[in-house]
Amino acid sequence: MAVYTEVPAEALEQFLARYESGALLSAKGIAEGVSNSNFLIETETARYILTLYEKRIDLGELPWFIALMEHLADAGLPVPHPIRDREGAAIQQLVGKTACLIQYLPGVSVSVPTAAQARAAGAALARLHLAGASYTAERPNALGLSHWQASAAELGAGLDSIEPGLAAFVAERLETLAAHWPRNLPRGTVHADLFPDNVLMLGETVTGLIDFYFACTDLYAYDLAVLHAAWAFPKDGCAPLMDHARAIFEGYESVRPLSAAERAAFPLLGQGASLRFLLTRAQDWLAPPSDALVQRKDPLPFARRLAHYARLDG
Amino acid sequence: MAVYTEVPAEALEQFLARYESGALLSAKGIAEGVSNSNFLIETETARYILTLYEKRIDLGELPWFIALMEHLADAGLPVPHPIRDREGAAIQQLVGKTACLIQYLPGVSVSVPTAAQARAAGAALARLHLAGASYTAERPNALGLSHWQASAAELGAGLDSIEPGLAAFVAERLETLAAHWPRNLPRGTVHADLFPDNVLMLGETVTGLIDFYFACTDLYAYDLAVLHAAWAFPKDGCAPLMDHARAIFEGYESVRPLSAAERAAFPLLGQGASLRFLLTRAQDWLAPPSDALVQRKDPLPFARRLAHYARLDG
Repeated sequence: MAVYTEVPAEALEQFLARYESGALLSAKGIAEGVSNSNFLIETETARYILTLYEKRIDLGELPWFIALMEHLADAGLPVPHPIRDREGAAIQQLVGKTACLIQYLPGVSVSVPTAAQARAAGAALARLHLAGASYTAERPNALGLSHWQASAAELGAGLDSIEPGLAAFVAERLETLAAHWPRNLPRGTVHADLFPDNVLMLGETVTGLIDFYFACTDLYAYDLAVLHAAWAFPKDGCAPLMDHARAIFEGYESVRPLSAAERAAFPLLGQGASLRFLLTRAQDWLAPPSDALVQRKDPLPFARRLAHYARLDG
Repeated sequence: MAVYTEVPAEALEQFLARYESGALLSAKGIAEGVSNSNFLIETETARYILTLYEKRIDLGELPWFIALMEHLADAGLPVPHPIRDREGAAIQQLVGKTACLIQYLPGVSVSVPTAAQARAAGAALARLHLAGASYTAERPNALGLSHWQASAAELGAGLDSIEPGLAAFVAERLETLAAHWPRNLPRGTVHADLFPDNVLMLGETVTGLIDFYFACTDLYAYDLAVLHAAWAFPKDGCAPLMDHARAIFEGYESVRPLSAAERAAFPLLGQGASLRFLLTRAQDWLAPPSDALVQRKDPLPFARRLAHYARLDG
């Protein structure tokens, strides 16, 4: 949540001259994105988001993300179109950083989703899965099971400084997950981080799916478990909201019904999703990134959600 | 340059219901303002800037600033109109903070102004002085001579840690300023901080004068000296750009000619303006605000500009 790089208006005007965007009218650095700097740009013809990629992203992977956004937007999903310049390039250089201009989408991120909003998010995720099935380029999930194992080993007793007993609980859950993680469920392109922050809404309509920089090739039902872990609980709470939980499944299955195997695996997938956010938040908690502009998020709600899904699995 | 306070979309929707603004379409925290949190808000009818006032501002003074902005905007200056709700209130409460919705203005802040842009800024400042003359409520300049004296005393030898000899140089200049500071020049409402950051432009046209939270009642020619110290030098440089310096005076005097006494006092006023920014930057440099989101600015360019104006005074 920061602007790491300043872009002089003069440099921005030169940059926009590559596009059919018309002249610059306004540019505001916006407090969005933890791994990049973002600007809301207005020109004579339209509004755009300009992203400058900072060190947290592997630039070699950028073409995969940009092509995915374009694929989904072309399929009619509310995903921002990457904008191509007159020569067809979407990935650019600006003030020494890799940059991309994308479509601006209306909508706000809700802080306390209603069940109806959770249903809409579930349906949007299923549409993303269907549209993403024809995006066949693969990207492994860098934050999957083997990352959880490495991260837990690295954090070690540090987890107990967050809460006594947390290290042993994580180790025990990891053993179960490693033994039983499903291998044969339907898989394809997933968002892998569809928190309310990354969904723009107007009322109960999804107007934007954003921040694709954790997207990868993984189990569809795991992506739904991430959404469930993020949307089906009160803010920082651990007891699920039953209306929301039901609405998420109803919304998702109104577009893409789950198989019996996907349903059966859900308690395990929910544990995996909770562990993924527990561990990355614990990393940031114990060793905040040196740029210090990223706000630390409490890992403990995801320890509680992990315990919740583990009980379902009992 | 930060968003200190999060505003949930739900709270913002409730807040906007007080206004004739139409429904919320988008809200982005923007990286502007060091003493407050700012959001670019889009509704069905218009765009706005929402400001939440943080601890750095004395809320008792807020009505003075808001009424000034309204006075200047009503006079036709490109100053954002504060927006009043259906009951006529401009100053509100939102998520526990004092808040104000103001008009959104197009334009960008230039980083490296041209002489023509400096001329336009000079002319805009003179128009501000003329329109502000009928705003008769007074506000003393909290960052005037007596503040410089107190600040220099407090910083003491700390100034020498920025540059050896700086403390003695400041003390010597302060003695001259205290002995000769002009008392009888034309005075009225001044902006007191019209750096390029606080001017929105499209090409060579000023489309916005913003950030009035240092505005006060002081010498008009001192305000011009602030603008000169901010616009007539290369970025972080100390040798003035002669074309820019000339253009600033031409622009200003095309609207409000200076008296002989104002011209004669200019080297002294330039020293005062340089000292004001040297000292506040030195304070932030030596004791950064604990919120740490404010970017420190190098005080030394203003030590060099102080020396430049002192030579003119020789």
